[in-house]
Amino acid sequence: MNTANSQEKRFTGIGVSEGIRFGRAFVLAEPAEQAFFPERIEAAQMEAELQRLDAAKTKTFTELQRIIETAKATLGEEKSAIIEGQQSFLSDPAFYGDIEAHVKKKLLSPENAVQTVVGKLTALFEKMNNAYVRERIHDVRDLAARLMSHLQRTSYSDLTQLTEEAILIASDLTPSVTVQLDRRYVLGFVTQLGGETTHTAILSRSLGIPAIVGAGEALAEIASGDELIIDGTRGLCIVNPNAATSAEYRAMFAHEQLLTERLAAFKNEPARTADGHTVELAVNAGMAEEKLDGMVDEADGVGLFRTEFLFMQSDHFPTEDEQFHVYKQLASAWNGKPVVIRTLDIGGDKELSYWQLPAESNPFLGMRAIRLCLHEQDLFKTQLRAILRASAYGCVKIMFPMVTTIDELRKAKAFTEQSKAELRAEHIAFDENVEIGIMAEVPSVIQLADRFAKQVDFFSIGTNDLVQYTLAVDRMNEKVAHLYDYFHPAVLRSIHSLIQAAHREGKWVGMCGKMAGDPLAAPLLLAMGLDEWSMDAPSVARQKFRLSTLTVGESKLLLEKALDLDTAAEVRAAVKHWNQSQETSKS
Amino acid sequence: MNTANSQEKRFTGIGVSEGIRFGRAFVLAEPAEQAFFPERIEAAQMEAELQRLDAAKTKTFTELQRIIETAKATLGEEKSAIIEGQQSFLSDPAFYGDIEAHVKKKLLSPENAVQTVVGKLTALFEKMNNAYVRERIHDVRDLAARLMSHLQRTSYSDLTQLTEEAILIASDLTPSVTVQLDRRYVLGFVTQLGGETTHTAILSRSLGIPAIVGAGEALAEIASGDELIIDGTRGLCIVNPNAATSAEYRAMFAHEQLLTERLAAFKNEPARTADGHTVELAVNAGMAEEKLDGMVDEADGVGLFRTEFLFMQSDHFPTEDEQFHVYKQLASAWNGKPVVIRTLDIGGDKELSYWQLPAESNPFLGMRAIRLCLHEQDLFKTQLRAILRASAYGCVKIMFPMVTTIDELRKAKAFTEQSKAELRAEHIAFDENVEIGIMAEVPSVIQLADRFAKQVDFFSIGTNDLVQYTLAVDRMNEKVAHLYDYFHPAVLRSIHSLIQAAHREGKWVGMCGKMAGDPLAAPLLLAMGLDEWSMDAPSVARQKFRLSTLTVGESKLLLEKALDLDTAAEVRAAVKHWNQSQETSKS
Repeated sequence: MNTANSQEKRFTGIGVSEGIRFGRAFVLAEPAEQAFFPERIEAAQMEAELQRLDAAKTKTFTELQRIIETAKATLGEEKSAIIEGQQSFLSDPAFYGDIEAHVKKKLLSPENAVQTVVGKLTALFEKMNNAYVRERIHDVRDLAARLMSHLQRTSYSDLTQLTEEAILIASDLTPSVTVQLDRRYVLGFVTQLGGETTHTAILSRSLGIPAIVGAGEALAEIASGDELIIDGTRGLCIVNPNAATSAEYRAMFAHEQLLTERLAAFKNEPARTADGHTVELAVNAGMAEEKLDGMVDEADGVGLFRTEFLFMQSDHFPTEDEQFHVYKQLASAWNGKPVVIRTLDIGGDKELSYWQLPAESNPFLGMRAIRLCLHEQDLFKTQLRAILRASAYGCVKIMFPMVTTIDELRKAKAFTEQSKAELRAEHIAFDENVEIGIMAEVPSVIQLADRFAKQVDFFSIGTNDLVQYTLAVDRMNEKVAHLYDYFHPAVLRSIHSLIQAAHREGKWVGMCGKMAGDPLAAPLLLAMGLDEWSMDAPSVARQKFRLSTLTVGESKLLLEKALDLDTAAEVRAAVKHWNQSQETSKS
Repeated sequence: MNTANSQEKRFTGIGVSEGIRFGRAFVLAEPAEQAFFPERIEAAQMEAELQRLDAAKTKTFTELQRIIETAKATLGEEKSAIIEGQQSFLSDPAFYGDIEAHVKKKLLSPENAVQTVVGKLTALFEKMNNAYVRERIHDVRDLAARLMSHLQRTSYSDLTQLTEEAILIASDLTPSVTVQLDRRYVLGFVTQLGGETTHTAILSRSLGIPAIVGAGEALAEIASGDELIIDGTRGLCIVNPNAATSAEYRAMFAHEQLLTERLAAFKNEPARTADGHTVELAVNAGMAEEKLDGMVDEADGVGLFRTEFLFMQSDHFPTEDEQFHVYKQLASAWNGKPVVIRTLDIGGDKELSYWQLPAESNPFLGMRAIRLCLHEQDLFKTQLRAILRASAYGCVKIMFPMVTTIDELRKAKAFTEQSKAELRAEHIAFDENVEIGIMAEVPSVIQLADRFAKQVDFFSIGTNDLVQYTLAVDRMNEKVAHLYDYFHPAVLRSIHSLIQAAHREGKWVGMCGKMAGDPLAAPLLLAMGLDEWSMDAPSVARQKFRLSTLTVGESKLLLEKALDLDTAAEVRAAVKHWNQSQETSKS
């Protein structure tokens, strides 16, 4: 823990969301390693052991009570009900009563008794042909882990204990964890694992809070309550900053605020280059809590609506009406500006709590996104009907993720036509001319762009996956993170050739990966003729500002050079050099 | 088990190595699920339980003795020594004595006692800072599993029990399992998991025995001893065939033999098309047991020598001298014909028993092949020195696998230059002009082929991985196997553009993936101008025969059409249609 004379320490990682924040650490603990415990106890110890068990039970009950109260205030009744369920289970004869019995009658140690009873209950629940009951296994395990932590006096922290502003420190943040997060209290993230395009990175950028990922094992040295500065721009986390560091960062923070104010002038202007060329600047969305209100004026539309968050934040497959309600609200809110709704993109690293997908050796090369939807046809058709119905309320476009073959595109389009026919027969309104496009994120789409372009209305380049497959690099694996770079000339050439092929067929091309919001990449994308740039909300004003300083003509000279370089480092250096010469020529 | 009136049953999977075989099943059992056992016993049961334990020990000892004898005869002293080690450990006080003590003094059930002692030993061994001791953990666990199987009367079969000709049925065959295999007895493979290009597939093709993979869970119905017919061409496994089926297959088998004899005429002829164009037909190698003797006359060289098998078949990192010895023998044996030695390609699905790599979420997109070698520089330099030294004894070429960026190529070449400088200083002979090439298997190499071509002497296309990354499909995942196809137009275009870019720089292009040996693909590859075709030994004569029926001119017309099709199915249909029209026009 921090003390006045604690030494300042610095941890570096990958800065995935820019900005500076000051705050205290909240360390999301890993499930603690269990300490040794005896399997059996002597009869003479029984009373003492029962008392120890009872004390742990009481502590668990009190802790749950506190969590319930917090959850009610911040997360709503639905989430707090889950914890109330655990609390009542704590007093259930089938749980606590059975644990006591195992200690009394079989002389098991309390720890062994907890494990034995959990094992029995798990086996029992698993046999039930009922998803609701099976889901309760998690609750029992969670409850048992908490009870065990009090028996063993180890810590068992969870996100419900985050009740004031803090910087969250974690090994990794999975999508299912982050949905339980009370975002009002999160000033920033620092994670041990992860790369540029993990869920943590996407979430932090969409919330506009700084984040550092892949900070490594050294992170274990940070304790809850430590005073921190995080600098998402430089990927730096400073623990117990000394006075000089604090002063320096206060100044930088003030400068940052000033810049933000300056960018505000560009907010509601169209995205226009110095030579009068305009592009569409759209926003990526999907998280229910995102503050997109102001964006309807600031952005030219939604270039990517990630429907998977709607599925991840639910505890069941959202029904057609539930989905329709969300999509309709979205389409209406954007007042006729285009809204690109991507069909369900799960698998890979994105899971649903209520749908256990089989484990795969290489999930990023496995059953995910459209592959899964073409397999689970009811799921897919339900979503298509909901999106089509929403298309009556705005300018909705449908986008399929992870398309690899033209076969898949044909099938997905056939399902869409089938859903349209059903809606027609049921006299339900929808936009007969809804545009249909695909994500360009698998290398086969780049190679076959001319053929795909004849059969879609648009492409949206998903740079995160496209880079991953083009360079054969898992974007979440820090051991190969040094290879992952969208400035790699192979990636630039892929994007360039796709845009050319699409334009030859008169089709538009968007981009919804992180690259679209990167000011350094802007001249290259402008020169390639990218039509729609979709990014996280906080990047929109900045990219508008960046575009206002560029001209198409000069950018094309840079692109020509970049496409003929050997390495990502050479491209980055060339762009930076070009930036400097641009600034010099202007001054 | 089979009986005279057993019903005929058919299982289908992916035929990965052609041919028909008749034989009995040998089912390689999964480690059996443990039956329930009590944790404790009553004092009154102790004597009986100790007798049960002793009986299991005796059975284990006898079983190991039989395995040792078989292993000595077939696998050599080194492998049998491992089993002898287990046998002597069975009588060790630290193992068996301690198990007995736990039953006697603590009244643990024998099963619980076995588990407890194994747990203690494992924990102890894991703490040792000694790879040899840590490796013994596997032996202790293996021994304990065998003892447990006799305690519980479950079966514990392993490959050492394969002592007569049989068709091997397994869930999956990992590289580390197959190296323990006595190949004289394997008539064919059928596995539950896996796809076209798994280790099983590569092994079976190089041994020239039929194999079916991805046959699914139904395979569990086959028992050891069942009479089988496997048809690797059609991916069909027939259990308890009836008389009609047997007769049909006997006839097909005879026809197959006839074809093989006819192909023999092409064996030692050069690979020449009907219009007099010749290509280089080389062989893939790497397995120590491969019968490549005849191939030195039949093939034009070794297009791919997989050094990873040398590493996998060893129980330590092969020293420079050990490697040199193998590479020198190889180079000499091929009498000046080119031998392309690929540097270590592990990671992904290939592991070394003595080097535990950290687990990865997507190993195929992780730390593997050249990425690992550039990280483990001593390992890499040892291998480079060994290869360079061997280059004095024949026509050796060096090939780097999995190159993604030009940076990596530069580094790998720098290490090679460094090794050359060392050898020069030590006055050790090597070929100063040894050619250096890379595998073309990552999409970035295709996109950047013109830049790579300036910096290599040759490319060899690894279609297995190239298809995997271009289509974002794990080639071992049967759930997405339907997407994996090297006839996909995106793959064809990738290969075509690479060959064109290489030829513009005057560099030659080989191919060492499965596609090179596929007669159906031959006209397309011929038309593209593929210079060197490297394949498993049994395919060479057949591909020579196929080439003898083709002309470059007609093949080019087919290629032009194929490159403009939408799907793999359309390409396959076009090639088959073209084949038919070729045959018709000739007759």
